[in-house]
Amino acid sequence: MSGLDSIGIAAKKAGRQLAKLTSATKDRALLSIADALVSRQSVIIEANRKDLEAGKAAGLSDAILDRLLLDSTRLAALAKDVQKVAGLPDPVGEEFDQKLLPNGVRLSKRRTPLGVIGAIYESRPNVTIDISVLCLKSGNAVILRGGKESINTNTALAELVRDTISQADLPKDAVQLITSTDRKLVDEMLKMKDYIDLLIPRGGAELVKRVAAEATMPAITGGIGVCHTYIDKSANQGMAVAIAYNAKVQRPTVCNAMDTLLVHADAAPVVLPQVAREWGKAGVEIHCDPASLNILQAVKGEFSNGFKLVPAQKEDWGTEFLSLTASVKMVGSLDEALLHIEEYGSGHTEVIVTEDYSAATRFVNEVDASAVMVNASSRLNDGGEFGLGAEVAISTSKFHARGPMGLRELTSYKWAVMGTGQIRN
Amino acid sequence: MSGLDSIGIAAKKAGRQLAKLTSATKDRALLSIADALVSRQSVIIEANRKDLEAGKAAGLSDAILDRLLLDSTRLAALAKDVQKVAGLPDPVGEEFDQKLLPNGVRLSKRRTPLGVIGAIYESRPNVTIDISVLCLKSGNAVILRGGKESINTNTALAELVRDTISQADLPKDAVQLITSTDRKLVDEMLKMKDYIDLLIPRGGAELVKRVAAEATMPAITGGIGVCHTYIDKSANQGMAVAIAYNAKVQRPTVCNAMDTLLVHADAAPVVLPQVAREWGKAGVEIHCDPASLNILQAVKGEFSNGFKLVPAQKEDWGTEFLSLTASVKMVGSLDEALLHIEEYGSGHTEVIVTEDYSAATRFVNEVDASAVMVNASSRLNDGGEFGLGAEVAISTSKFHARGPMGLRELTSYKWAVMGTGQIRN
Repeated sequence: MSGLDSIGIAAKKAGRQLAKLTSATKDRALLSIADALVSRQSVIIEANRKDLEAGKAAGLSDAILDRLLLDSTRLAALAKDVQKVAGLPDPVGEEFDQKLLPNGVRLSKRRTPLGVIGAIYESRPNVTIDISVLCLKSGNAVILRGGKESINTNTALAELVRDTISQADLPKDAVQLITSTDRKLVDEMLKMKDYIDLLIPRGGAELVKRVAAEATMPAITGGIGVCHTYIDKSANQGMAVAIAYNAKVQRPTVCNAMDTLLVHADAAPVVLPQVAREWGKAGVEIHCDPASLNILQAVKGEFSNGFKLVPAQKEDWGTEFLSLTASVKMVGSLDEALLHIEEYGSGHTEVIVTEDYSAATRFVNEVDASAVMVNASSRLNDGGEFGLGAEVAISTSKFHARGPMGLRELTSYKWAVMGTGQIRN
Repeated sequence: MSGLDSIGIAAKKAGRQLAKLTSATKDRALLSIADALVSRQSVIIEANRKDLEAGKAAGLSDAILDRLLLDSTRLAALAKDVQKVAGLPDPVGEEFDQKLLPNGVRLSKRRTPLGVIGAIYESRPNVTIDISVLCLKSGNAVILRGGKESINTNTALAELVRDTISQADLPKDAVQLITSTDRKLVDEMLKMKDYIDLLIPRGGAELVKRVAAEATMPAITGGIGVCHTYIDKSANQGMAVAIAYNAKVQRPTVCNAMDTLLVHADAAPVVLPQVAREWGKAGVEIHCDPASLNILQAVKGEFSNGFKLVPAQKEDWGTEFLSLTASVKMVGSLDEALLHIEEYGSGHTEVIVTEDYSAATRFVNEVDASAVMVNASSRLNDGGEFGLGAEVAISTSKFHARGPMGLRELTSYKWAVMGTGQIRN
């Protein structure tokens, strides 16, 4: 039996205990974690300092070091997030789809925890708290595997959580961290299907793809968003520009940022220069198909700041840029836009800007993605924006849950059958 | 590109077309399949005769040959089943979880097909029709792989379906049958995750286990039911006997039949002999723990027909008998029953017979299974009995769907976001 087996067995056991706890007990434990993040911050900050020093010595970039950093301010914000989760409704036990069967049986579904969640994540150590808290709230045990850059911080955070929850009558092993940074352990973790009911990869495309390809248990596939915004010929131009700007610029490094702008040929001559001017102010590099390049090159001189125009290559379609880069294509019809999205989209978030009822209806009906939007920014595809209160991930899989996954998406259900002696004829 | 790749590509394409069809179009196609099963029965019966002859020559048992048989009567019944599915509500497009967000966005979820379903099944050829029809109704394309014993029948049925639906404006490739009986193709099918969104194994435990272990795409885990019925000390005795009899005897070869009877020590002296007497009439072989063996041996002489008593071995606990065999154990408390179920149950169907409110509540809350029942026969865990209209399988997985899976469980959803220019702040 490997070390991971004993972690798995302990997690299963803790999960069964968690499943029986009341919301009040779980919320008390969460609030005590929030308190401890502030009252015991010196331990965390000291551990974090070790990671930062090791990171500097290893030559990590300032951006990565900043992602690693946990100080007083960030711990206080993290504690607030934990309090917010404690205040959300408990999904476990929720009853739905009730019916009275013709034979008198009262039938319903009741939400249950999934059991044990596995989480593999990269540098940001606050994920240790985020995921732990969402799992505890939804009655699931969790096995955490963080990045080696934040091993000291993660270890201190996990110990704080384990210590705190065990004082709040929760099983310590509801949260376990794999402390060895041996990369082989990720391979082993991907094989733990007897112990892990759902695996959540939180990190870059490489991690997500590896988990999708190799995990033996259900895993969330997501995080890769090749998102299109289609400006229809009937679009309100001001709205189109505002949405195109927000979708590309507001936070370009995330999965629901726009990658490709499709513009109807009738709208392009007027709307494209306006979009480009706004993008230009933010420093967006624009990879244009020949038709849109024509339009934008003709007006480039009009704008003092100018903007970066690059002829689009084949690989600009279907690419998630995660940066201030966008590809632009002119299309002759809604059908052409739909075909482009079908071919190049990753099923994450697709947007139409239109005033045409039939175009809006067709777009929503026909596009196959986790979120399909009319006249809104793709950046809105998010658990917080959708009112879920918290988000584990955005799933692009069609199985179990699609789009933003909150607490409810960390549950299963059981059928409760309340009879009075019914048998089968 | 192997032959299966081209099948996969064609299925994906057909699935995208199916997703856009109206309910009326799909139902017309289903009704024309029902008609063809009757009007073109001679082709099916002739193909079936070849399978039966080959089966006889290969020395298949009468029971298996009977499962293979399709005659006029069975085809008429099959046609009726297809008509019934046509009459069910279309899950695709159903809108739920609607809300108006604070920023004015109208948010909802809309059910969508999963895409392409794969089905691997064993001898009964009517599964070819069952699964095809459920997939078509739910807007999914399907790739079928039947058993080699029914290859001629399956081929004729699949051709009938393809021919019929293409005349009803559905893409022919919405239903494709893998006609090679080479066993290697099952291995290949298990790797088709780029084309198959959900794999459904319909067959014995060996097939189900193989699919669970080797499928690279989501697959339904189910079909294995180690089901317990616990007779509490407060149980109504007549009800307990009726439920124990029904759960074991009404159809012993299926997954929701009872395997182990747990009886509270206070109830056992009176209720166990009554259960055993009824079971004895049906020829049930009873594998008893020492305590229940004592009780039943003492009264065995009283019953003229007698009953088969065998001392239970270790392997009698946690075994799915799929026959007129039951194991029986006396327990000292509800807690002991819960522990036994937690240790040996397969998470399929668990039953308590009790008049005690607290015992019923604890049982439903604490037992982790697809269906948890109070005072009802485990045989009721079934899509038909639960009012789903049709059933693809009973899932014992906690992911996506648990328990009976009907049309709705063959769908995913997308978030529809209807805005008026909202962006993210």
